[in-house]
Amino acid sequence: MKLATIRTADGTRAVRLDGETLVDLGYTDLGELFAEDGWQARAAAASGTTYPAESADFAPVVPNPSKVVCVGHNYTNHIKEMGRDLPSYPTLFPKFADTLLGAHDDIVKPAETEAFDWEVELAVVIGKQVRRADEQQAADSIAGFTVMNDISVRDWQFRTIEWTQGKIWEASTPVGPYVVTPDEVGGVRPSLEVKTVVDGQVMQQDDTGTLLFDPVFLVQYISTVITLRPGDIIATGTPAGVGNARDPKVFLLPGQTVVTEIAGLGACTNKVVAQ
Amino acid sequence: MKLATIRTADGTRAVRLDGETLVDLGYTDLGELFAEDGWQARAAAASGTTYPAESADFAPVVPNPSKVVCVGHNYTNHIKEMGRDLPSYPTLFPKFADTLLGAHDDIVKPAETEAFDWEVELAVVIGKQVRRADEQQAADSIAGFTVMNDISVRDWQFRTIEWTQGKIWEASTPVGPYVVTPDEVGGVRPSLEVKTVVDGQVMQQDDTGTLLFDPVFLVQYISTVITLRPGDIIATGTPAGVGNARDPKVFLLPGQTVVTEIAGLGACTNKVVAQ
Repeated sequence: MKLATIRTADGTRAVRLDGETLVDLGYTDLGELFAEDGWQARAAAASGTTYPAESADFAPVVPNPSKVVCVGHNYTNHIKEMGRDLPSYPTLFPKFADTLLGAHDDIVKPAETEAFDWEVELAVVIGKQVRRADEQQAADSIAGFTVMNDISVRDWQFRTIEWTQGKIWEASTPVGPYVVTPDEVGGVRPSLEVKTVVDGQVMQQDDTGTLLFDPVFLVQYISTVITLRPGDIIATGTPAGVGNARDPKVFLLPGQTVVTEIAGLGACTNKVVAQ
Repeated sequence: MKLATIRTADGTRAVRLDGETLVDLGYTDLGELFAEDGWQARAAAASGTTYPAESADFAPVVPNPSKVVCVGHNYTNHIKEMGRDLPSYPTLFPKFADTLLGAHDDIVKPAETEAFDWEVELAVVIGKQVRRADEQQAADSIAGFTVMNDISVRDWQFRTIEWTQGKIWEASTPVGPYVVTPDEVGGVRPSLEVKTVVDGQVMQQDDTGTLLFDPVFLVQYISTVITLRPGDIIATGTPAGVGNARDPKVFLLPGQTVVTEIAGLGACTNKVVAQ
């Protein structure tokens, strides 16, 4: 299944994609759906109001996750471009719900930065509460996968030794358009082409099968530390080709369009606009 | 006013301290209260059910903040003990709602760490939504102050260059017991004695007046990045004397009691227990 949260005149709605049509699932958003036991069967069986997919206004797939945990240094090529050794543990940093955007929303470049960068990422969406998950529990907790553009404000990210202030900017981070269930992408450790295209130029291109720490391992690792709840999001890291690692550096400017795309999941297509 | 969120048989309740008595304010928790315009007058005037303060079961002052932003390297003495230069910008890192505990709850030491450390902190609680706040707006957005023990899992904190995974452990971080309004502590840049006592031994002792980045500045800085909402919490950093900086290092063990106290605000008193 391909599931989404869309904005309608009556607020957000959780929907399922059937061909060219979105079918209302009877829930406000995917976070509310995923909190229900047996949500897979409910989502598959639902037959509510329909909306044309083409004109849908996508909200973040989960508008209000209790936590968004992001992973750095997780593609071999990106680790090498940043000049680092292969790590023993995943590097974790946060985003907050207020940081998220819909898959086709404009991204407002804050006036406070001139180093506004892209990072395409495979994102895991949690469909079942887990703490200290073993491998099977972790696999079972994955509702599906989506695309995140982990927009990064590099000049703030590197003001101090902690990246947080460069990673949590308001309404900066598209996530969507669909949560695609694991059965549609070859399971819970999918091998999918991932890329970023800025104004038609390919900037990042890799395969999610080359992740050092795979989705199941990340759920196990993070759930050791804290409960993962339905709707929580794990962003699994970005491959080589970010603007900050180029020579010369290249950053996003108002007027540009950035497409972050993962084969089988879809794309976030976002115009960058001035504040 | 001294305000709190307590657990009752009917769920959590927002209360005001009157002498030895807690007065129900008609809201589920302080986050819900602070989201109301004119909450100060409502809280001052309320006269609902009462509960004895002595036997109250304190929840985190705000059980479900949309964000908890913590500051590192903010007391001159602590920066020196960690061997660092005075910073130009505040260092920010996160906690999540699931990380918080009540002021008198037991702290469960996870089996996965042998480096479980204390950090007393003055915490700012937001009472009014702000983004890109100027100095006056920032001052006006501060509902009050409370005590946080920013419990840190040092071995996980230093596994990678990002501290997040050592700072977000489930149910690790007491915050409370009261949110004390600025008028009771000398304003929005209070100068209060802050200390940590472990089994009767003073481990940290300083004054919140020596913060490099004061509460008003921190609201301005963080709100440049992201909206601060009613109930959001900013932990302003810890002074010298953490266990990890001692020689030899000292960490919390099951059976110990850790008291984090700020003059005029009260104390978190927590027993450490085995998982």
